[in-house]
Amino acid sequence: MRTGQTHLFIPGPTNVPETVRQAMNVPMQDMRAADFGELTLGLFAGMKSVLRTTTGTVMFFPGSGTGAWEAAITNTLNPGDKVLMARHGQFSGLWVEMAQRLGLDVEVVDLPWGAGTPVKEFARRLAADRDDKIKAVFVTQNETATGVASNVAAVRRALDENFHDALLFVDGVSSVASLDFRMDEWEVDLVVTGSQKGLMLPAGLGILGISEKALEASRHATMRRAYFEFADMLKMNADGYFPYTPPTQLFHGLRRSLARIEQEGLDKVIARHHRLAEGVRRGISAWGLSLVAEHHTLYSDTVSAIRVPAEVDARDVLRIAYEDFNTSFGSGLGPLAGKVFRIGHLGDLNEAMCLTALSVAEMALYRAGVKLQLGAGVGAAQAWYAAQAAKRPMLQVAAE
Amino acid sequence: MRTGQTHLFIPGPTNVPETVRQAMNVPMQDMRAADFGELTLGLFAGMKSVLRTTTGTVMFFPGSGTGAWEAAITNTLNPGDKVLMARHGQFSGLWVEMAQRLGLDVEVVDLPWGAGTPVKEFARRLAADRDDKIKAVFVTQNETATGVASNVAAVRRALDENFHDALLFVDGVSSVASLDFRMDEWEVDLVVTGSQKGLMLPAGLGILGISEKALEASRHATMRRAYFEFADMLKMNADGYFPYTPPTQLFHGLRRSLARIEQEGLDKVIARHHRLAEGVRRGISAWGLSLVAEHHTLYSDTVSAIRVPAEVDARDVLRIAYEDFNTSFGSGLGPLAGKVFRIGHLGDLNEAMCLTALSVAEMALYRAGVKLQLGAGVGAAQAWYAAQAAKRPMLQVAAE
Amino acid sequence: MRTGQTHLFIPGPTNVPETVRQAMNVPMQDMRAADFGELTLGLFAGMKSVLRTTTGTVMFFPGSGTGAWEAAITNTLNPGDKVLMARHGQFSGLWVEMAQRLGLDVEVVDLPWGAGTPVKEFARRLAADRDDKIKAVFVTQNETATGVASNVAAVRRALDENFHDALLFVDGVSSVASLDFRMDEWEVDLVVTGSQKGLMLPAGLGILGISEKALEASRHATMRRAYFEFADMLKMNADGYFPYTPPTQLFHGLRRSLARIEQEGLDKVIARHHRLAEGVRRGISAWGLSLVAEHHTLYSDTVSAIRVPAEVDARDVLRIAYEDFNTSFGSGLGPLAGKVFRIGHLGDLNEAMCLTALSVAEMALYRAGVKLQLGAGVGAAQAWYAAQAAKRPMLQVAAE
Amino acid sequence: MRTGQTHLFIPGPTNVPETVRQAMNVPMQDMRAADFGELTLGLFAGMKSVLRTTTGTVMFFPGSGTGAWEAAITNTLNPGDKVLMARHGQFSGLWVEMAQRLGLDVEVVDLPWGAGTPVKEFARRLAADRDDKIKAVFVTQNETATGVASNVAAVRRALDENFHDALLFVDGVSSVASLDFRMDEWEVDLVVTGSQKGLMLPAGLGILGISEKALEASRHATMRRAYFEFADMLKMNADGYFPYTPPTQLFHGLRRSLARIEQEGLDKVIARHHRLAEGVRRGISAWGLSLVAEHHTLYSDTVSAIRVPAEVDARDVLRIAYEDFNTSFGSGLGPLAGKVFRIGHLGDLNEAMCLTALSVAEMALYRAGVKLQLGAGVGAAQAWYAAQAAKRPMLQVAAE
Repeated sequence: MRTGQTHLFIPGPTNVPETVRQAMNVPMQDMRAADFGELTLGLFAGMKSVLRTTTGTVMFFPGSGTGAWEAAITNTLNPGDKVLMARHGQFSGLWVEMAQRLGLDVEVVDLPWGAGTPVKEFARRLAADRDDKIKAVFVTQNETATGVASNVAAVRRALDENFHDALLFVDGVSSVASLDFRMDEWEVDLVVTGSQKGLMLPAGLGILGISEKALEASRHATMRRAYFEFADMLKMNADGYFPYTPPTQLFHGLRRSLARIEQEGLDKVIARHHRLAEGVRRGISAWGLSLVAEHHTLYSDTVSAIRVPAEVDARDVLRIAYEDFNTSFGSGLGPLAGKVFRIGHLGDLNEAMCLTALSVAEMALYRAGVKLQLGAGVGAAQAWYAAQAAKRPMLQVAAE
Repeated sequence: MRTGQTHLFIPGPTNVPETVRQAMNVPMQDMRAADFGELTLGLFAGMKSVLRTTTGTVMFFPGSGTGAWEAAITNTLNPGDKVLMARHGQFSGLWVEMAQRLGLDVEVVDLPWGAGTPVKEFARRLAADRDDKIKAVFVTQNETATGVASNVAAVRRALDENFHDALLFVDGVSSVASLDFRMDEWEVDLVVTGSQKGLMLPAGLGILGISEKALEASRHATMRRAYFEFADMLKMNADGYFPYTPPTQLFHGLRRSLARIEQEGLDKVIARHHRLAEGVRRGISAWGLSLVAEHHTLYSDTVSAIRVPAEVDARDVLRIAYEDFNTSFGSGLGPLAGKVFRIGHLGDLNEAMCLTALSVAEMALYRAGVKLQLGAGVGAAQAWYAAQAAKRPMLQVAAE
Repeated sequence: MRTGQTHLFIPGPTNVPETVRQAMNVPMQDMRAADFGELTLGLFAGMKSVLRTTTGTVMFFPGSGTGAWEAAITNTLNPGDKVLMARHGQFSGLWVEMAQRLGLDVEVVDLPWGAGTPVKEFARRLAADRDDKIKAVFVTQNETATGVASNVAAVRRALDENFHDALLFVDGVSSVASLDFRMDEWEVDLVVTGSQKGLMLPAGLGILGISEKALEASRHATMRRAYFEFADMLKMNADGYFPYTPPTQLFHGLRRSLARIEQEGLDKVIARHHRLAEGVRRGISAWGLSLVAEHHTLYSDTVSAIRVPAEVDARDVLRIAYEDFNTSFGSGLGPLAGKVFRIGHLGDLNEAMCLTALSVAEMALYRAGVKLQLGAGVGAAQAWYAAQAAKRPMLQVAAE
Repeated sequence: MRTGQTHLFIPGPTNVPETVRQAMNVPMQDMRAADFGELTLGLFAGMKSVLRTTTGTVMFFPGSGTGAWEAAITNTLNPGDKVLMARHGQFSGLWVEMAQRLGLDVEVVDLPWGAGTPVKEFARRLAADRDDKIKAVFVTQNETATGVASNVAAVRRALDENFHDALLFVDGVSSVASLDFRMDEWEVDLVVTGSQKGLMLPAGLGILGISEKALEASRHATMRRAYFEFADMLKMNADGYFPYTPPTQLFHGLRRSLARIEQEGLDKVIARHHRLAEGVRRGISAWGLSLVAEHHTLYSDTVSAIRVPAEVDARDVLRIAYEDFNTSFGSGLGPLAGKVFRIGHLGDLNEAMCLTALSVAEMALYRAGVKLQLGAGVGAAQAWYAAQAAKRPMLQVAAE
């Protein structure tokens, strides 16, 4: 029998804070009640803050982030539209596949897993697209499979410098509320996220940020859609209602998680993710292991994908961690299966939790046959965390 | 400030039993863990029992019942296919609209709200369809807006008697696990339901029962689909996994609610719904009011839609119940707004709760101007419930 | 198998509001942490408001109200002290028994069950007590067994008019936070309550309000005590700590329930209890049944003890309600067993809940053989509640 | 604002397992219902198993372990009785103080903090007690303040070898369900524990195991008692009821925690405590620090009290851990304040949690000025845990 806490270090779903969990433990309520908007209307405003947009529109779809991907595409594009996408990991690859299934003409740039969004190549193709055939450019801000964070702002610049008005789609599923994301400043047209990552909730909400330009496009887009229809949402959302029964428990949780983010401060949330991730990376480095991400500028502050030595099967690391030490890490996906394991370090997290992750990973690597000094990775992270803590003003101890 | 329990008598979301609520209050877990199937695999089997199918396939989509409608259509039909549908209430009407949006050629039979599925008219049209142009027939087993339960078995007979092999779609959102539903016996090809009605869970799961014939159809159907693709689900579900992050909390809850249904016995669940509904109807009758349902054979055991006298605004009844007595009833939808209010009586319910509903409705009707004797409706229901209780063997008192 | 809500109408433990229940669902915490006082210090202040005292001291003992009775006695009296008590129900009787066990010389006034505190007789004895032998006078403000509320203010007057300085003890277990109680105005020296009644929490806290006079007495009182020692509590409570591990979950719940009481307003809480109780009594009267309380001035607004006709066994009423209708009422205690059942109507309650209680009681009485018109009691209560609601300004609908 | 989990490594209250927490989240219920015993009767049997007694009687008092101490004394001893006690830490000292307050004639053996129960000295005094003046011998099985586990079996031998029939009292608050405890084999007469330690529940229950001999003594013992009266409990407990409102939520939790202990197996629970504790001690040793316990045979498997170097203030360690790393350790109590901090390692715990504790303690010691190699303590523990895991058969992964 398993005893003690289960330690969850997958890149989503992430740990739900106690106060959020409390908030969700409510009985069912009438989603057509006169005062239902008191629960929901603030969520749109709060989510806009998290996306750093004042002009955009937020929608919450019951479903997963994948559903929100589909909503973004089917509401704003037309069958056969050409779109520009890169494939450099499991999730960017799945997005390409969805676009193809939905009938888009996808111009795919294939890259090694570990690469980021190919900004220069995108720029070249946008420049070459004299007739504006490309209707949308897709960027996976954080490729969860490889731990690679891409430069969305640079893609915006590539569009602008080529006077190209393709829509800019961003997959922000594992970046929003954790990495720096600026919808208005970067003129993102459609950003997709889910409830179960930086927003620290269970899965169940696909969330979209939609620019005015994308909203306008949705009025004329001819792809078939029904469940994900923007117009239905817009009409009902105006008063805080939904076109079909929404998951009210998640809304109660979201209200609390948005309040947490606001209380901590979005900049500090992002800085915390960086501080914690850097400690994890220092640990990994002390083990003598390397990341899948090709270059340090691509390192993701929400997930690290770690290559194990060739003679070791990464699946053993996962198995040992799970069976012996009650700890879940992310597996290597697709071509990385067996070669990589991933540590998710996003959401409601602190230094001690990252050290737990490193402690267990270290033992699991050790038992799986990796030559390393037990304590070395943890020690490197501790040194970083201790130094960072020394810089911070003493926390004001206050109950939430 | 509101005090005391909130009394929820809408036709969904329904009251979540305490044990189900407990079961859902769990931390996040790894949906790719080696043992994840221990949670999920039993759910497919349990749900098949509830649908009374041994040959069908069950799928759980993160989303609402509306999403499951879309999944059913896009996976089994082709653009431009002719389908036969009736429109006799809000939800049958929305299904028609969805079918049209998704590009089907919908042959609509329009009926007064309060009518049931027009079996004879369906039979006539199926007989006339010599070339088998009609690819699917849609039945709303329980029209939630009007409290009308239709005869699915009769539609099956109409198909059989005309040697017609159109697919049989059933909207079972507010009937499955509450009214008698027999997927195999009635050869239903696609049945749609959601988590938040007879399954006594929060909203968030769109659930499908799919016959072998429908599954075969899905292998060739050419409608565009991605999020709702059966093939992705099938492949992952085989081992208990999902193509995208599923709402694990709901799975924990579903496990418990399926266990409750099994423990009570599906036949007894259905009998209980009938017993409780009959009490509510006797109360309504004692008020001198009538139901929207045109005929007593159409009365739904999950929801009663009650006409108020012409000089009274049903919205006042709702408002008084909600503001003064902390009680939610369903409103009259579409053309019934102001003329009708609805009492949902499905899911985890007992006699005392139905009497609560009647007590409050009676006061609210009285205050809204309906001439009635206070206590009369409650008394009629009490007489029925007391008589029924007298027939039952004494309950064996046992903790769950 | 039982389905639907369990309906709880016993005079404690009472129904816990959802928000209080949420608040208690927290992980364990360090009860010696530097910031622990942020949780606890406000509770003392909040509880003082509920007791309407500014000069008194509040203590929370892990235990039941019975424990708090003992704390009150052992900290302020000396072995062999003479005290004046009345015995007119189960709980006043148990208090007498405790005082005797603890070595006090109890002057008992025995009265029929259904009588209130005998103010005139107390006055007579106090007047006769020339040497101030009586060190304390005990009043059960609400005798839970009989549904009798006594006049504490009158006992204070009896003391004052006789220039008697005995300590005034009040059992407020089922009255505090529900009935009018004024510690400072009535110069109550020791008031005892528990968490599981008007405070709407689970059992587990024995709560004391202690006057300055009683606190002074505790410095010299020589009864043996250890666990319940005031001095230990006083010392630790000053900074929000406790001499032994306190039940922190209950503190989180208490914080929320005190906030609820403050938000509703203590006067309105008391008025609501009266309004709801009056409806219940009108229902009882419509059944042709009478209360145990001897006179209408003694009727308790927190619990009604109802006499059933001689030919009916009240235990059948309880059994039918519990087994057939999932509803708990209070039983007749001691000599009232089989003759009486009790409806608790205190704590987090509303009109619809009281109607539920009456509906079920009515059916249970009917089935147990009481001649009554089904619906009659409910109708009488509805008339009262509807009339009262008509008087109130429309509630402002606001989420808590 | 604090983010991430709060890490609790105090020697109680301990972490509550998720399944236990779930079990406690229930609405209030009728503690006089006919079927209430279905909840409670199994608890007595389960608790007897944990105490390894078949002949003893278990009682649950609403209150803390301190209350149960008082119950044990007042029910079985007489005013002025001579008892033999040792004082070698905060909690053994408080027990002495309680015995004195309650009027016992306490023969105290004072020892340095860090010593265990002085078995030889006890034997000497028992031998000298020719007239059997000593009515009871008290043993603190686990002195929580010093991390010292004493030898109860040896005290039993000392009694037997001297043909002394004094009652044997054991404080098992921080040992029961964690360390080896054998009530019948060691002929313990009164063992006291609480809900918030090895039983993995919130505080709120004081629990007693009572031998037949002690029960017989209680029939004649003349100390004043009321709330803690055995006879009241015995009478009501026979059918699963209680003399006053019990904390039913804790009973639901206890049922689940006893089931967990049974499922894991009590021997394995004890072995796990040893395995985890040994890892913590190896970490401490790698830091070059020593324990308060005087000798390795006294090391407690539930709590380690760690001496910091003279130039460091242990309060800084606690403060840094709490403020910077959201982690609670136990403080040095009484004379150990500032010199010692404690790591609680009991209850629902696993390897990863112990490594979290060591990681944070290491950083906190480092920042407080202790010279140590970061990672060294963690590494020593990892080596132990990894080696132990290698010995175990692979866990069968099974959902609870």
